[in-house]
Amino acid sequence: MPMPAEVMLREVGPRDGLQNEQAIIPTEKKVAWIEKLMDAGLRYIEVSSFVSPKWIPALADADDVFRYLTRREEVTLAALVPNPKGLERALRAEVDEVSVFISASDTHNRRNVNKSIEDTLPVLQEVTREAKKAGKTVRGYVSMVFGCPYEGQISTPQVEKVSHALLESGIDELSLGDTIGTANPKQVTHVLRQLKTTIPTGRMALHLHNTRGLAAANIVAGLEQNIQIFDSASGGLGGCPYADGASGNIATEDVQYLMESMGIATGADLNRLIEAAAFIEPHTARGLASYQAALVPRGEDGA
Amino acid sequence: MPMPAEVMLREVGPRDGLQNEQAIIPTEKKVAWIEKLMDAGLRYIEVSSFVSPKWIPALADADDVFRYLTRREEVTLAALVPNPKGLERALRAEVDEVSVFISASDTHNRRNVNKSIEDTLPVLQEVTREAKKAGKTVRGYVSMVFGCPYEGQISTPQVEKVSHALLESGIDELSLGDTIGTANPKQVTHVLRQLKTTIPTGRMALHLHNTRGLAAANIVAGLEQNIQIFDSASGGLGGCPYADGASGNIATEDVQYLMESMGIATGADLNRLIEAAAFIEPHTARGLASYQAALVPRGEDGA
Repeated sequence: MPMPAEVMLREVGPRDGLQNEQAIIPTEKKVAWIEKLMDAGLRYIEVSSFVSPKWIPALADADDVFRYLTRREEVTLAALVPNPKGLERALRAEVDEVSVFISASDTHNRRNVNKSIEDTLPVLQEVTREAKKAGKTVRGYVSMVFGCPYEGQISTPQVEKVSHALLESGIDELSLGDTIGTANPKQVTHVLRQLKTTIPTGRMALHLHNTRGLAAANIVAGLEQNIQIFDSASGGLGGCPYADGASGNIATEDVQYLMESMGIATGADLNRLIEAAAFIEPHTARGLASYQAALVPRGEDGA
Repeated sequence: MPMPAEVMLREVGPRDGLQNEQAIIPTEKKVAWIEKLMDAGLRYIEVSSFVSPKWIPALADADDVFRYLTRREEVTLAALVPNPKGLERALRAEVDEVSVFISASDTHNRRNVNKSIEDTLPVLQEVTREAKKAGKTVRGYVSMVFGCPYEGQISTPQVEKVSHALLESGIDELSLGDTIGTANPKQVTHVLRQLKTTIPTGRMALHLHNTRGLAAANIVAGLEQNIQIFDSASGGLGGCPYADGASGNIATEDVQYLMESMGIATGADLNRLIEAAAFIEPHTARGLASYQAALVPRGEDGA
């Protein structure tokens, strides 16, 4: 089956990778890591989250991380924003792009933000409208697209409904999340074929966790449906697959190897991605979940 | 793309999974593990190797493992056999199936058995002929099909040549090995499409190591080419992906999950496969490389 000749990687390690991290990583280490990710050729990095520091202490330094980063013309720096208050901080921090989020599962959405999907949408719409007014692009995450720990399977019409609500509110890009890493390639093919009937593939991204080791296979299913945007996390941060309750995104360097091996351009450099992951490793509590990083012998200092 | 409705799993953990294992596992633990794998519904197990104990001390007890196993009508018990001397032992042990092996890379073949491909073929032919005469089926492994650490890419005509030499010598099934886990789905598709022009898909198996996390994606590529036989190792034994020089086969329970999630029957039971892997874990030096086993909390005794 034909596949795209090039894809875009959305690096979510500094946000999604760290939000469940037990260790509090010093701000200057986060900044140095993100600089290395930019050096490696990544053109999009979700830097942090402007949620309340009480919710996610690991990302409480979002304002400072943005303050200390050296901006580069070619790199989009994004941040997760849950509400208008978060948007204020994000705009002060001069983010390039704002990410909003909602779940395809009403139960999960209630557990995550204490609101139904119906009651969450107006908040997202307000954030999106104000972000666009401020000249920002907006990305919308839909989580639990391929299954939910509370509701099991989520119907494709439900995914479509939530996706269209986000698109109608003005988001530029839709990121479809396999939040618990339960998707299989057949299902990814099925869901994307249906979504493609009403949403251009160029506006859809896949956000795949590797909990069951199927994220790479699911990416290939996405490529075969002409998806060209993939989320991943440096070092596979966000959970080690060999620990209970594993939940990390697929490692950026593993996606890079997959793409390179199939002749698909990303603009990034594998060795420098591995170096970036190795740099942050000693500052994390759980270590990396990265096949490529595991293939490179390195010292305790991450060198 | 259409996929087969059912597949056959070839459990190679007790042989390929253990041959690089540093710990010497007591014979009775191996036997109990293999019994558990049969209890889990596996219908094919490569039990051990009749190579010289000097080559592979971890498998020196091959004769005893066969002696203590309780045979089951529906299960094929196989063993690797390098030469006529090994075949004598295998026949005395009353194996059901004999596996012979050769590399698609001449350099790797010389490093592995101290002989060129050309000089190895007559030995395999003799083993195959004698095994068939004794009423056994024969399986032929071709290793380094998708790349070699010494020679890099192996040409598809070279793979075809070696495969046909094995088939002409009388083997029943051909197992195509990605021995160093370097294959990608595009390449698997390409190689299989070519091999299918001269070899029935029903006689080809894929033997994929998960060194770079792509074995599941490569299995899906195989399914799309109508391959119906897949090798795997209980617990992903044979190397931990998070250790240097990782080299294990993809875990049987991870393949089981992949198949189950796509509605493809294997005859095996996921939970019992996980139990079998958890049983052997405390007896190994490197531990498991299994996403499914990692999702199940368990005590130090593997319970």
